[in-house]
Amino acid sequence: MLDLLPEREKKPRRSGVTMVMDKGLGLRQAEDLAETAAHLIDFLKLGFGTSYVSNKTVEKVKIYHQHQMKVFVGGTLLEAFLVRDQLDDYLRYIDALGCDTVEVSDGSIRLPHEEKCNLIDRLKKDYTVLSEVGAKDCHVTMDNEQWSDAMQQELSAGSSFVIAEARESGTAGIYGSEGEADEDLIQCIRKGVSADKIIWEAPLKQQQVWFIKQFGANVNLGNIAPSEIAALETLRMGLRGDTFFDFLPEKLKKYKL
Amino acid sequence: MLDLLPEREKKPRRSGVTMVMDKGLGLRQAEDLAETAAHLIDFLKLGFGTSYVSNKTVEKVKIYHQHQMKVFVGGTLLEAFLVRDQLDDYLRYIDALGCDTVEVSDGSIRLPHEEKCNLIDRLKKDYTVLSEVGAKDCHVTMDNEQWSDAMQQELSAGSSFVIAEARESGTAGIYGSEGEADEDLIQCIRKGVSADKIIWEAPLKQQQVWFIKQFGANVNLGNIAPSEIAALETLRMGLRGDTFFDFLPEKLKKYKL
Amino acid sequence: MLDLLPEREKKPRRSGVTMVMDKGLGLRQAEDLAETAAHLIDFLKLGFGTSYVSNKTVEKVKIYHQHQMKVFVGGTLLEAFLVRDQLDDYLRYIDALGCDTVEVSDGSIRLPHEEKCNLIDRLKKDYTVLSEVGAKDCHVTMDNEQWSDAMQQELSAGSSFVIAEARESGTAGIYGSEGEADEDLIQCIRKGVSADKIIWEAPLKQQQVWFIKQFGANVNLGNIAPSEIAALETLRMGLRGDTFFDFLPEKLKKYKL
Repeated sequence: MLDLLPEREKKPRRSGVTMVMDKGLGLRQAEDLAETAAHLIDFLKLGFGTSYVSNKTVEKVKIYHQHQMKVFVGGTLLEAFLVRDQLDDYLRYIDALGCDTVEVSDGSIRLPHEEKCNLIDRLKKDYTVLSEVGAKDCHVTMDNEQWSDAMQQELSAGSSFVIAEARESGTAGIYGSEGEADEDLIQCIRKGVSADKIIWEAPLKQQQVWFIKQFGANVNLGNIAPSEIAALETLRMGLRGDTFFDFLPEKLKKYKL
Repeated sequence: MLDLLPEREKKPRRSGVTMVMDKGLGLRQAEDLAETAAHLIDFLKLGFGTSYVSNKTVEKVKIYHQHQMKVFVGGTLLEAFLVRDQLDDYLRYIDALGCDTVEVSDGSIRLPHEEKCNLIDRLKKDYTVLSEVGAKDCHVTMDNEQWSDAMQQELSAGSSFVIAEARESGTAGIYGSEGEADEDLIQCIRKGVSADKIIWEAPLKQQQVWFIKQFGANVNLGNIAPSEIAALETLRMGLRGDTFFDFLPEKLKKYKL
Repeated sequence: MLDLLPEREKKPRRSGVTMVMDKGLGLRQAEDLAETAAHLIDFLKLGFGTSYVSNKTVEKVKIYHQHQMKVFVGGTLLEAFLVRDQLDDYLRYIDALGCDTVEVSDGSIRLPHEEKCNLIDRLKKDYTVLSEVGAKDCHVTMDNEQWSDAMQQELSAGSSFVIAEARESGTAGIYGSEGEADEDLIQCIRKGVSADKIIWEAPLKQQQVWFIKQFGANVNLGNIAPSEIAALETLRMGLRGDTFFDFLPEKLKKYKL
């Protein structure tokens, strides 16, 4: 009814994907999120090990599945199983939750990249695989080319999307310690990797605005807080001050302040 | 039962008004808010364009109405309709939501002040009108007298209250980039405009404390997060550390640290 | 199923205690919290005066009690009754709420320490008593020995636990203005007071991480936001990046980044 809005694909979509991080919602909160915003959410991450320490996780996953979200547990939990040599237990765990999607990451542990790719290759037969690149520890750095190469290799190995690390705080991986975008790194990744295959973690509003201004309404974004999902969509649609004029035709720019 | 508390009017009240910003609550969260805090909430803003991108908005407005809150959609959404020359569509939209209150703002767009006042005058016949003064872009500045004059003119045109802009972040309009109050501006506004007619946006606790200390328990405040509504009331009542002694008689100041 | 996790006692527990601060949750949010995380929550504080200004508090306390949490109202509310010479009204108030636990604090008022200890002694006959040490005003300071002595005396007087003040913001009491731990003070307290008897307020994640790294998975922590309770448990268990290797045996450190 409102004209001149950016086009957005409907689910299941290939671009303009949004991944939410749930770090312990209850069932009523999950119902609320699903009822009001399921059309806006493609992936639902149960952050780090929160699924493991909370009750009612199975029931919650069911709610999300009923609303066509793909649900996965945070990569850190897989890493916890991996260092204990308990991969099979991990798979039994996520099967019991009913998850058909996995995140393969090495943000907290040293994992030779070939092993990571082999794991992606093995898991892709039974699951949708997302893999994440970038360390949670800001003292561990890769050069820009390494980021881009790793992502390409993981997509080749079988990841459906590669995720660019930012943590929940938005102060690691592709961001500096104040949450500011590492522009060189991000441009380097964009040169090497197909845009539709990257999910940029962007928990802070300033980061969401930056990516939408840079790459458009349909950039893939992740680690969005459940309470910010409608607000993010308004940024994508130009229905909030920050991106109000970004998607309007030239002739309407006369209204610009 | 607790003696010596500041007096607060009951709804519908003319002073001590609180306006909450909901940027995407679900129905259960809205029920929770209404059940526990309806007596504390006069106006309920569905922030910027969030009403437009979320499901279940009609049902949510009903819940708020059942609890005697006046509900309106954020002024940014009106601005989005205005620049597209779709005012009639906007009115159909809010009528379909069941809203009897509108916010007229020009925080993101250039709107000649006479046109803004004409719009207020037109809308006041069918709606309670709130109008907002101040730009969302901190590079756009008005001098203090302009703020005060604009508010007086909008009240004359038919606004029930004028809202002083701060954004959701509390770092624009009447605040500096660290969220600190622009005291000269605020005093200038207070000189020109009747205190009961101004709603000060004050999303940050430090701002709420500042206004309550400055103008008393019954200052009108806006852009309060739903999760902070009870906490704000304790600040108004002197039931939190920050304002504990502000409303106590002199003889009890002996307990002061 | 995941091996090599730190051991955690079950409720009712003597160490590894967690105290949550609720500053206005509704009944559905309270049910959500209880259903998903009751096993992780020992004490539930209704922050400062929020219980007094909200509706449905009696019903909410019932929900928490059904899930074996000990519920108390914030010490600031007791202080508000105390300065008005209304202690009996306070006790009637918490009895009407159904609370069997009280917090005795002097964070906002001047209360001779002997009087505080006498009050603890009086209340311990009918209630579980928690007492808090530390001022909410960062300009009011005690030297480190005074903190430690006060805590020991309050435990002797009858407190079940002593709480080290931090406010909701985490920027007072045992922390500096940036939320950083006052290490000298904390070590001094630890020397004088039995570890299991102290609840450290630690609302910020950096503070939770600091205490867990310093004193282990089973340090007692308080003023945890309801939305952070599962996340805190992952920090205690080494299931989040920040403490991933803290509880793993030496031989697994080869995986360290």
